[in-house]
Amino acid sequence: MVKKLQSSAVEAYLEEHKDEALHLLERLCRQRSVAAQNDGVAEMANLVESLLQENGFSTQRLTVEDAPPVIFGEIRGRSPFTVLLYNHYDVQPAEPLNLWDTPPFEPTIRDGKLYARGSADNKAEIAARLTAIRALREVHGELPVTIRWMIEGEEEIGSVHFEEIAKKYAHLFEADGAMWEGSGFDEDGRPSLVLGCKGLVYVQLDVQGVGVDAHSGSAPILPSAAWRLVQALATLKDADGRVRIPGFYDAVMIPGEPEIEALAQQGDNETLMKQAYGIDAFNDNLTGIELRKRQAFSPTCNIAGLLSGYTGEGSKTVLPAKAMAKIDFRLVPEQEPDDIVAKLRAHLDANGYQDIRIMTFGNAEPVMTPLDHPFSQRIARIAEEYAEKPASITPLGGGTLPLLGSMRRHANLLGLMAPGNATYWGNAAHSPNEHIRIADLEQAVHYNCYMFAALAEEE
Amino acid sequence: MVKKLQSSAVEAYLEEHKDEALHLLERLCRQRSVAAQNDGVAEMANLVESLLQENGFSTQRLTVEDAPPVIFGEIRGRSPFTVLLYNHYDVQPAEPLNLWDTPPFEPTIRDGKLYARGSADNKAEIAARLTAIRALREVHGELPVTIRWMIEGEEEIGSVHFEEIAKKYAHLFEADGAMWEGSGFDEDGRPSLVLGCKGLVYVQLDVQGVGVDAHSGSAPILPSAAWRLVQALATLKDADGRVRIPGFYDAVMIPGEPEIEALAQQGDNETLMKQAYGIDAFNDNLTGIELRKRQAFSPTCNIAGLLSGYTGEGSKTVLPAKAMAKIDFRLVPEQEPDDIVAKLRAHLDANGYQDIRIMTFGNAEPVMTPLDHPFSQRIARIAEEYAEKPASITPLGGGTLPLLGSMRRHANLLGLMAPGNATYWGNAAHSPNEHIRIADLEQAVHYNCYMFAALAEEE
Repeated sequence: MVKKLQSSAVEAYLEEHKDEALHLLERLCRQRSVAAQNDGVAEMANLVESLLQENGFSTQRLTVEDAPPVIFGEIRGRSPFTVLLYNHYDVQPAEPLNLWDTPPFEPTIRDGKLYARGSADNKAEIAARLTAIRALREVHGELPVTIRWMIEGEEEIGSVHFEEIAKKYAHLFEADGAMWEGSGFDEDGRPSLVLGCKGLVYVQLDVQGVGVDAHSGSAPILPSAAWRLVQALATLKDADGRVRIPGFYDAVMIPGEPEIEALAQQGDNETLMKQAYGIDAFNDNLTGIELRKRQAFSPTCNIAGLLSGYTGEGSKTVLPAKAMAKIDFRLVPEQEPDDIVAKLRAHLDANGYQDIRIMTFGNAEPVMTPLDHPFSQRIARIAEEYAEKPASITPLGGGTLPLLGSMRRHANLLGLMAPGNATYWGNAAHSPNEHIRIADLEQAVHYNCYMFAALAEEE
Repeated sequence: MVKKLQSSAVEAYLEEHKDEALHLLERLCRQRSVAAQNDGVAEMANLVESLLQENGFSTQRLTVEDAPPVIFGEIRGRSPFTVLLYNHYDVQPAEPLNLWDTPPFEPTIRDGKLYARGSADNKAEIAARLTAIRALREVHGELPVTIRWMIEGEEEIGSVHFEEIAKKYAHLFEADGAMWEGSGFDEDGRPSLVLGCKGLVYVQLDVQGVGVDAHSGSAPILPSAAWRLVQALATLKDADGRVRIPGFYDAVMIPGEPEIEALAQQGDNETLMKQAYGIDAFNDNLTGIELRKRQAFSPTCNIAGLLSGYTGEGSKTVLPAKAMAKIDFRLVPEQEPDDIVAKLRAHLDANGYQDIRIMTFGNAEPVMTPLDHPFSQRIARIAEEYAEKPASITPLGGGTLPLLGSMRRHANLLGLMAPGNATYWGNAAHSPNEHIRIADLEQAVHYNCYMFAALAEEE
């Protein structure tokens, strides 16, 4: 561990109970909980609720129709300072199963790592937080701060009912700050903080040409759905990659000096990323601060899927009746998902593509907690004290957590992703052979104990 | 029948043996012969060879390595005038089986139609030609003309070994003209002639971006295979549908007056086609002679397939590592497949797409027998005399027969598609419930008797 805990008694407790988090994690991973396949989700909700109860939480199930329950627990602490923790108890599907070296729901330890579906995302963090809470309570008989903890069961399918939950149960979520599904420490030991997430709107474009697939011999005179889609898509971006939908950039926030400075101070993982993605260079040969600015503050129009006609081996001479594209737009503050879809519709119409159908899946607003927000400042300071290294701060992460918008709107709550999870580059979250490093898990428990105690201290 | 045969004895013979062609067709259809699945192909070759032998042909098997045999037969006739007939004994796969009302290899008669895989394409023509030949020989003891007949077993998989066959056995194919897999009579009774076929070159374009699919949150900085493909494709055509590959139109033949006149005289099936394709209008609202010219003489660049990333239900936020397009170019005289691929490569390179890989499948040159070729003129005249209606002549069909180029190059042989088959709009060739109308089959036998006799007459 980097730093001694404030309490040597807790330090000694953790030393004596070294495997507690690992055993808890194994127990959590052994219970399947695949939301997309509704496999084990109810059993997992029960397990999570009993674990919270066993550790002193008063719990309740937050329910809306057709959704698995959000398990909510609360422990009042010595200090009135209140932290809201967020996690999810569901996991991604384990398929393709043949690529796993060991069965995904039989947690297996190899080379100091624990392999299982859901280990990194995000059962290790549930285990780490719970183990830290248990240690603090065992030693002190109480928690230093008040903790509210919500653990949902639909994160991996887009938190589809979270908006309803947030609206219905907003009163439960009052807190001085929220800690979402967390991050960890960089390879060089710097704590990693993420202050917000991009928004997302995901659309599918459908083009219908002829009524049924036709012999391509008639291509001179028949409308082509595939060509129409390609030509429509080509109007969406210019050669430099800039989105050409009128008004797309109207609401884009100009990042402030503190955010740019935070990017400049981030740890450098360009080499690591290039290796991971198998590329020689990033777009436009960007590097350094320009690369980080592009990644952090550019909204995107990404083609996530394309399908038309014959896609098997060899050749089939067909003029396809249909063509389809899936596009995800990642949005930055203060772009609004509905507004972007309306602008896409208007752009297609203005270019003569009134016939192209737009279906929308998923819709989340961008949310960024300011760097100078007291909670951001406080967590950063605690993490830096602990690590004895400057934090690496990402003002806006590339991914999306749909719940951030709901929490901001309904509960007026902001938060961040901060160390306390056992994630690292290469944990294969969402992929076969997902795993965590056991040392990271132990460090996460230790850090959580430090952080909860530090939050109770007067500033 | 429209017209009495030249010989009343043959007319009477056909009357007495009315079901002969139908029974033969049933026998042919009962024998599976799916080239793509190598299902029954060898048995079908045996059946075809014995049928030819039983009907007076001296036969031989034309073989090259790894190919099913082409069955070749010859009967010397009273006149030295020699016709080369072409058919194929293989059929398309029957799948999807659940869409067939009766099993595809159990020929079934309903409402004056015979349903079976391969009935229309093209076992009915084998039955019709053979029945006509048998009738003429039974009545006259000999054939009026010399007939050479080649029946191959790989047409439905692109006649992949035909080039080798044509080169090796060119000496067998000498003839005054060839009649390929044939056409029929229009619904208004006009004989339909097709004098050639467009060429074809089929390519697959592959783009590789990142090494593995990435989370789309990194889209601002990672290369996108899907966007790169879309943008490359968009350079291939302008807004008017004209192909923008430099030199693409260089070798395109300007159709002559006779060909344009032939198009003007064609039967009108615009309404039928619009219904069949479920469209309100053809490209550019073309109609009449302009529509026919576009269909006949325009080369095409058709997108036959598109694939990238996630194509299932709902959403997956992925930045795909790969993107693929399949494109078929239909070529008109004197465009050359290899030249077109070279020009495509040069165009992509010139636009900065050196990384896009091109794979080529299928490669056939366009071949058009001139309208004023003696054989075209002679067959048209015979068909018009028989039908007592003007022929509807297509100078260049939209489809492709790869063997035409091989036959022209190696055997110096030209030919056409002319009545004698029992095809009609709606026969569902290549589709479930493929069928022929039995009346068309009888007419095809009758017409073949007329035509073979007429070809023996001095011009």
